[in-house]
Amino acid sequence: MSTNVVILAAGKGTRMRSTLPKVLQPLAGRPLLGHVIETAKKIKADHIITIFGHGGDLVKSAFAHEDIQWVEQTEQLGTGHAVKVTLPVLPQDGISLILSGDVPCVQQETLQRLVDVSTTTGIGIVTLTLDDSTGYGRIVRDNGKIQAIVEHKDASEAQREIKEINTGIYCVSNAKLHEWLPKLSNDNAQGEYYLTDIVAMALADGLEIASIQPELAFEVEGVNDRVQLAALEREFQAHQAKNLMQQGVHLIDPNRFDLRGQLTVGQDVRIDINVIIEGECHFGDNVDIGAGCVIKNTTIAAGTKVQPYSIFDNAIVGEDVQIGPFARLRPGAELANEVHIGNFVEVKNSIVGLGSKANHFTYLGDAEIGAGSNIGAGTITCNYDGANKHKTIIGDNAFIGTNNSLVAPVKIGHGATTGAGSVITHDVADNSLAFERAKQVSKENYQRPQKTKK
Amino acid sequence: MSTNVVILAAGKGTRMRSTLPKVLQPLAGRPLLGHVIETAKKIKADHIITIFGHGGDLVKSAFAHEDIQWVEQTEQLGTGHAVKVTLPVLPQDGISLILSGDVPCVQQETLQRLVDVSTTTGIGIVTLTLDDSTGYGRIVRDNGKIQAIVEHKDASEAQREIKEINTGIYCVSNAKLHEWLPKLSNDNAQGEYYLTDIVAMALADGLEIASIQPELAFEVEGVNDRVQLAALEREFQAHQAKNLMQQGVHLIDPNRFDLRGQLTVGQDVRIDINVIIEGECHFGDNVDIGAGCVIKNTTIAAGTKVQPYSIFDNAIVGEDVQIGPFARLRPGAELANEVHIGNFVEVKNSIVGLGSKANHFTYLGDAEIGAGSNIGAGTITCNYDGANKHKTIIGDNAFIGTNNSLVAPVKIGHGATTGAGSVITHDVADNSLAFERAKQVSKENYQRPQKTKK
Amino acid sequence: MSTNVVILAAGKGTRMRSTLPKVLQPLAGRPLLGHVIETAKKIKADHIITIFGHGGDLVKSAFAHEDIQWVEQTEQLGTGHAVKVTLPVLPQDGISLILSGDVPCVQQETLQRLVDVSTTTGIGIVTLTLDDSTGYGRIVRDNGKIQAIVEHKDASEAQREIKEINTGIYCVSNAKLHEWLPKLSNDNAQGEYYLTDIVAMALADGLEIASIQPELAFEVEGVNDRVQLAALEREFQAHQAKNLMQQGVHLIDPNRFDLRGQLTVGQDVRIDINVIIEGECHFGDNVDIGAGCVIKNTTIAAGTKVQPYSIFDNAIVGEDVQIGPFARLRPGAELANEVHIGNFVEVKNSIVGLGSKANHFTYLGDAEIGAGSNIGAGTITCNYDGANKHKTIIGDNAFIGTNNSLVAPVKIGHGATTGAGSVITHDVADNSLAFERAKQVSKENYQRPQKTKK
Repeated sequence: MSTNVVILAAGKGTRMRSTLPKVLQPLAGRPLLGHVIETAKKIKADHIITIFGHGGDLVKSAFAHEDIQWVEQTEQLGTGHAVKVTLPVLPQDGISLILSGDVPCVQQETLQRLVDVSTTTGIGIVTLTLDDSTGYGRIVRDNGKIQAIVEHKDASEAQREIKEINTGIYCVSNAKLHEWLPKLSNDNAQGEYYLTDIVAMALADGLEIASIQPELAFEVEGVNDRVQLAALEREFQAHQAKNLMQQGVHLIDPNRFDLRGQLTVGQDVRIDINVIIEGECHFGDNVDIGAGCVIKNTTIAAGTKVQPYSIFDNAIVGEDVQIGPFARLRPGAELANEVHIGNFVEVKNSIVGLGSKANHFTYLGDAEIGAGSNIGAGTITCNYDGANKHKTIIGDNAFIGTNNSLVAPVKIGHGATTGAGSVITHDVADNSLAFERAKQVSKENYQRPQKTKK
Repeated sequence: MSTNVVILAAGKGTRMRSTLPKVLQPLAGRPLLGHVIETAKKIKADHIITIFGHGGDLVKSAFAHEDIQWVEQTEQLGTGHAVKVTLPVLPQDGISLILSGDVPCVQQETLQRLVDVSTTTGIGIVTLTLDDSTGYGRIVRDNGKIQAIVEHKDASEAQREIKEINTGIYCVSNAKLHEWLPKLSNDNAQGEYYLTDIVAMALADGLEIASIQPELAFEVEGVNDRVQLAALEREFQAHQAKNLMQQGVHLIDPNRFDLRGQLTVGQDVRIDINVIIEGECHFGDNVDIGAGCVIKNTTIAAGTKVQPYSIFDNAIVGEDVQIGPFARLRPGAELANEVHIGNFVEVKNSIVGLGSKANHFTYLGDAEIGAGSNIGAGTITCNYDGANKHKTIIGDNAFIGTNNSLVAPVKIGHGATTGAGSVITHDVADNSLAFERAKQVSKENYQRPQKTKK
Repeated sequence: MSTNVVILAAGKGTRMRSTLPKVLQPLAGRPLLGHVIETAKKIKADHIITIFGHGGDLVKSAFAHEDIQWVEQTEQLGTGHAVKVTLPVLPQDGISLILSGDVPCVQQETLQRLVDVSTTTGIGIVTLTLDDSTGYGRIVRDNGKIQAIVEHKDASEAQREIKEINTGIYCVSNAKLHEWLPKLSNDNAQGEYYLTDIVAMALADGLEIASIQPELAFEVEGVNDRVQLAALEREFQAHQAKNLMQQGVHLIDPNRFDLRGQLTVGQDVRIDINVIIEGECHFGDNVDIGAGCVIKNTTIAAGTKVQPYSIFDNAIVGEDVQIGPFARLRPGAELANEVHIGNFVEVKNSIVGLGSKANHFTYLGDAEIGAGSNIGAGTITCNYDGANKHKTIIGDNAFIGTNNSLVAPVKIGHGATTGAGSVITHDVADNSLAFERAKQVSKENYQRPQKTKK
């Protein structure tokens, strides 16, 4: 049987006070709607139908690469109306999960369970039991079977004591949606079409309403303002942190850890406080990440130790590398095993060979460095002539002196040495020493400038 | 009717274990007493009378710029005594709010409500309802009217069940203060004069005691030790963070945000974890502040993106600027629109023109840089000759080579270029190339120093 | 009477998902077992007997420097069996505290109280009263006297209501251990020897079971997985933070403070958010540590202000020094009073004299700098020739120009000056000016490289 996912994503989200449509607000670096789409893909939905409205062009272009059927809801006339506008594209058979684009954390397993229980009944819902259910639609049961969903304002005194509530996540047979949705009425105080009304229709048809509860309450939390967004961000992060700890990651403080993407790990990875991981990262066995590092789309091989406040973006780091503190690897940085990159060193689009070292104040841009070389403090590859970028090639076992300017394109041979303070504009042959320097001169009894009287 | 504020600020605060008087301990970067004075100013108090004692000179000099009447309490004989010593300067008419210098978070609206309810009765208090009221003075009511305030030790079993307590914040007619305070007695176990006793006097005079409750409990929390100070700092910060989120700021983690001053914002400002804002700051629309930035007294215009671990102090930043990571703007840094300031770059008392770039390891001090110029990595303005500071002037579309030392005073013309590694001591004409360099020489088969045997 | 400590440290800790034995997992930078050993030393245990098993060589080598008697438990047959294997080395007289290597936070005072109450009875235990005691062994009392410890699964309905539980910390007369342990039986579902069974033996012998409760619940919390480890880390850190605040330290956020070692302080020390302290540190009066600093094994004298994101390791810092932001002091850095070390400055194995300054982009390695000297921005001591390290000696009141390379070994005299951009290879005499520079040349109407068409 085919499974569809219908996602309500037409709301404006006025309370976010943003120019961005609500479903594009980011949670853990990904739009709210993106989380729902990812989950829809995980459960292998045959069709993902998304209802857009406010800021529709922005929403569609943000997911242009996804295989989504977009249906426009030009007026926001309620949740029932939103799903009704999908009927022209909704298959006649199969079943549909109906999700909200601003309820981003629902888990694949929860949806799978909902599909499973709904397949036989034709309709199922996700409910939640709360300590304080004030304001929510209550689930009225008799002998365990759902008899009604009663909105808070319509609930009797006794019904208000009910702790089980409707989360607004449904799974319904497509045939039934085609039958029920055209019959929805907006004859109510708000003049809206409520999706909830299909529950009464199902009961009237003699159907049983299947139901499940999520494993974790945060799965069904929605986002309406920045305060809720920040709260859900923390719950999502805590959930991710717990998962990593259960995989064996040593997180020094799970409340000070942010994962905005995917992290896969080897054994005995240690991550100190306030680290941010973005995009897709992998850390091998015994990788140790110091406090405050920001690491994006980077693979770090086993045994590497990253000291605090290092920032990586699209880098590849070998085994047993030592980096930081205050090191920056920019896109295209590739460090072989046992490389040392020290403090205040920036590496961009450069390959650094086995065991080579750049320990202080160095900019390596568009460079290729062999194995066993040492780059002196303050050395800069002058890769940009104001118009074009050029390459610097350094061989194995080279020794670049302090404060060098290596004017690319330039090649420095194996075993070559350069003198401190040199501007190297010509290639340096293997095993030779190159330097550019004037003679040191001296004036005795030099009188320094005096403080100007003001 | 005139409104006065009387602030009790004479306590030593022994439990803070500090040389600083308690009311000078900082909360969110401002002395406790400073918060109370700010609130007193917001409600447009006609007179602010502050009672000082311990560390009085320090206290007075910390607020020398404020329009405050200082009254010394030479002996600390209780809260009633403290207010009594103000009588010689207290106006005969009008009304007075009586506040504590170590209860810093009371809100303007709360005080305004207290004044409003107290004006007709002649006396009003702020009360609070607590889950656990143990230790506090209980508000005894009959038919809703306050009958007494009973201290915990004097309370009956039944009274101890009362959850409503006295917060010690009063608003009293000045005429009544002149009448009641001289009659206070210290005939009690501690031998102190208690301000609370005026409530009994008011009731004896047949007055009704007006009362209000604060919107938020932290408004009436006092500070007696460092543990309480840290707890209140967090509550204050959480309150500020919530306010900003309600204005539409995207705070990634409100528990890791510190505002020590005032921040005004445009729309869709995003602030990542562990940012500290100090003094007066303004961020325009779509400003994005990376993790760990520390920003003080700085204006940042719309569209600017600040990468992690950048530190600004008294800077002005234009639109669509890119800064950081690890950038530092010191006082007098002014960046025009579209400027790029990269990693490990320090800017002090310098103007950087439209679209100019200094991307790596640069110190710009006392410089003026035109539009469209590029400052090479490792370039340093030598603004200090050991005695005086001098200016470096760089024109539009200049290209400063790598590792330059620009020895100020020096002027580099429009469209000028300097060679890598140059020490520029003479002015460089428009569109010319200047360089200072020796010839690169080479020695083949160079024998490097060998490891000394030890 | 001699006091022994017996520590159970043979468990594997499968749920940690680590190659490291559980008792070597670090809490606040020290292995779990290390915390227990430290506490055992504080109570001046005559013998510390540690039972090892899984990963025994690693465990023993981690504490090779400690005076410990190691006893191997080759098979893990229960807590009773673990203690039984110590009998060959356990003294016949005296008393033994029986502790777990994975319950790291028990306090010295708690153990001392347990010893005190157990000395007369011959056996005592630490109990804890929990809101939810589900799963734990209940303490059954009659008239206040312990009658039994009943495991959860064996407990009656009434016993399950008991909130007082067994923590597994015992203090027992050695004579009794020699008598009871050989009689333990493994005739139970798990086939294990339970230490708890000695309580029944003691009661059968007519002994009274003494008991105490810890002051703080986290003292008796054990660690079985990374989630528990992280939770206990936070409780331990909160406890340390509170202690420091009670000593008068101004912690801006105790939830963002990590102490992994020992910190002693003077008065009015202020520590901003996210500081990490490692090893043994001392901060004098009025020391101010900025956000995000990482400080290890360092002494900082009174009045010194450290700006954010500075990293110190085995340094000694004088009074009224100004450091940072983004400064790094590596092992052997010694700063005299009133020194200024600015942004992006690295100091290693160097002495900086009274009031000397290195404010920007400087590497001082293996240097000795006198008083009142100024080191220009971008200056680097070339202490490494590719084979050996050499010293740079700079006198008093020297002025080193910008972007200098000081090629060690080299000596720069008192009052000497060096020109910007110099490579200094020869010693510079007192009061002389040395420079190494070519003549600045100029080419008019220079045509810069053009963007290559692609």
